Amino acid sequence: MQSLYQQFQVRFQYPVHFTNGLFKLDNPLFAQTIQPSYPGAIGKVLFIIDSGVALAYPQLEEQIQTYAEANRTIFQLAGSPIFVEGGEACKNTTEWVEKIEQAVNEFGIDRHSYIAVIGGGAVLDMAGFAAAVSHRGVRLIRIPTTVLAQNDSGIGVKNSVNAFNKKNFLGTFAPPFAVLNDFDFLAALQDRDWRSGIAEAVKVALIKDSAFFSFLFENASALATRDMPAMQQLIHQCAELHLNHIAGGDPFEMGSSRPLDFGHWSAHKLEALNGYQIRHGEAVAIGIALDSIYSQLVGKLSAEESDQIIELLEQLGFELYIPELSARTSTGELAVIRGLHEFREHLGGRLTIMLLERIGKGVEVHEINTELMTKAIGILETRKQKTEVNI
Amino acid sequence: MQSLYQQFQVRFQYPVHFTNGLFKLDNPLFAQTIQPSYPGAIGKVLFIIDSGVALAYPQLEEQIQTYAEANRTIFQLAGSPIFVEGGEACKNTTEWVEKIEQAVNEFGIDRHSYIAVIGGGAVLDMAGFAAAVSHRGVRLIRIPTTVLAQNDSGIGVKNSVNAFNKKNFLGTFAPPFAVLNDFDFLAALQDRDWRSGIAEAVKVALIKDSAFFSFLFENASALATRDMPAMQQLIHQCAELHLNHIAGGDPFEMGSSRPLDFGHWSAHKLEALNGYQIRHGEAVAIGIALDSIYSQLVGKLSAEESDQIIELLEQLGFELYIPELSARTSTGELAVIRGLHEFREHLGGRLTIMLLERIGKGVEVHEINTELMTKAIGILETRKQKTEVNI
Repeated sequence: MQSLYQQFQVRFQYPVHFTNGLFKLDNPLFAQTIQPSYPGAIGKVLFIIDSGVALAYPQLEEQIQTYAEANRTIFQLAGSPIFVEGGEACKNTTEWVEKIEQAVNEFGIDRHSYIAVIGGGAVLDMAGFAAAVSHRGVRLIRIPTTVLAQNDSGIGVKNSVNAFNKKNFLGTFAPPFAVLNDFDFLAALQDRDWRSGIAEAVKVALIKDSAFFSFLFENASALATRDMPAMQQLIHQCAELHLNHIAGGDPFEMGSSRPLDFGHWSAHKLEALNGYQIRHGEAVAIGIALDSIYSQLVGKLSAEESDQIIELLEQLGFELYIPELSARTSTGELAVIRGLHEFREHLGGRLTIMLLERIGKGVEVHEINTELMTKAIGILETRKQKTEVNI
Repeated sequence: MQSLYQQFQVRFQYPVHFTNGLFKLDNPLFAQTIQPSYPGAIGKVLFIIDSGVALAYPQLEEQIQTYAEANRTIFQLAGSPIFVEGGEACKNTTEWVEKIEQAVNEFGIDRHSYIAVIGGGAVLDMAGFAAAVSHRGVRLIRIPTTVLAQNDSGIGVKNSVNAFNKKNFLGTFAPPFAVLNDFDFLAALQDRDWRSGIAEAVKVALIKDSAFFSFLFENASALATRDMPAMQQLIHQCAELHLNHIAGGDPFEMGSSRPLDFGHWSAHKLEALNGYQIRHGEAVAIGIALDSIYSQLVGKLSAEESDQIIELLEQLGFELYIPELSARTSTGELAVIRGLHEFREHLGGRLTIMLLERIGKGVEVHEINTELMTKAIGILETRKQKTEVNI
């Protein structure tokens, strides 16, 4: 009997807006984002708020209530906001996902209602997962509050929680309904978090856009000292590059060899080895330094460009060596190298690592020379010792 | 600062094959379905098996082992199969989903490995959900074993589990990697399950294809007496119509008014009211009868065609009235009508119900006249009483 071949395309689209004072009464953006599902329909919105953001902005809940009241012909709040523990912790338990699913049930949130989540990348990931599996997908409005979430993790198509001690073990690909980047939230960031988000911009500049690398290099000290206009420009450019990368590639990663994000294979493992005390961006900065030096050691990148990358990262204030880089497993293997295999398993398929052939141009390889990688780690360690001696 | 507008399309494709003796050594289909993710890669396959199927085919596990051994250059088994309680029960708990996620972790199943699930619609739904959220989606091979799963639920793009006493509360849209329909599994079906799957064929014929309705009408007694060639033809035609419906419409149901499947709004509620003792297809047959009579009462369908539909359903052996149709809530409302609102909430947006204007042609409406619907229920009840008197 003849086989049948199913085939179809699905179009996804969403806006990424940039604003200040999102819930000020004279800012129409949030209300304009709500689309009636039929003429006259009033949108229902469940808010999820990162407890860290709520602490920094104690007036936020009331501001949202006032805004909703003023726009009551457009949308209504579904109950009180759910306040979620910020940071990776909220992804390490099923508690928060279940709490959101319960609220979806309790408040009658349907596929044309909204979950609006305000917070850092971890809270966006977790709430995004809950939204994606409830009724097979409730509309998700992401309101990222960190540099990292505004320029990278919060504008993409993925969500996740951790399980079995593995980062992002559970998740889906689910484009948001809209992303609203409010720069005002950045003011409350700790210096570490401000800096941390810049690492993804360095990453994307290195593999995609040498002019953007020059911008970062020229503005390194402004960025390190929290110059807001420079940061806004960084976020916009990084977001644009990131969106283009997703749209132009394989958005749902169905292909057979998705390259690991540049500098990320070691970063993920370092975060785990370090018990997630290090920020993701701090780990990525180390990963970028490591893979830049390694790219030079295998003869792909010039020493001059490799030095320039390290110089930029140091100017931005990143520490480029932590002892976890040299940690070994019980069998004597470098623990970060073991992480390489775990990451491959998460992605599936053949190991594919992005290296650099020049600033602005990545190149894929399928194996890593352990000896040279160990040497690269040694170079970062020596450099750190020298810096300490100088101090 | 200028807004960014993300936009991309994702292409999905999968085959639906028809076969006999899927795990006989001379049948290459299963092995051919496994695609190496890079040259020389050996696929890893975790089997999930409906315990009802395992009971009917005690040799199945050994047959799969022998088949895998004979094809060991193409794929290998990831541990022993997981045997899952068949029927809706497996969707009412998180136990089975977690068990599959644990196996994904334990056996290193990655995004290019396979979960092959053998069973009825409920087991396919549940295992499909576990596969879809593990690593953001492991390749899923569905091997449906019932008429309903082979011609409808097992060939589509959805998965789900139940939560908060609501059917399919959690789930995702996730096209399978492949569907392998093995007709041999149908031999073990109870008469109720054989018949039950025919209801979806009647549904799709009524809204899409009058020639298919004629085929069903002419072959009603052959189908009722388990004629295998007639059933194979039914499954193939129904599957093709169903696949075209998905591809030609809004596969991930992002639009604002997805019509409820014909006859399904009452069917879902009847299943719940009945504690899932009634089969889904049995409930759908009642739902079809109800909405056909209602279509006639509101002047959309001729009495002649409405009678023909009822005649076909009765010839196939369906009971068209159960007391739950007349159940009332504590406020005196008909419980099935209450179900209408719950279903609308699950889907979101405006209520949209499919009725018939003739056999082969559905028509959407946005409200239901409770009085006429009550009358339609009365007609089914009276008809049942008459039949009983005749016996």
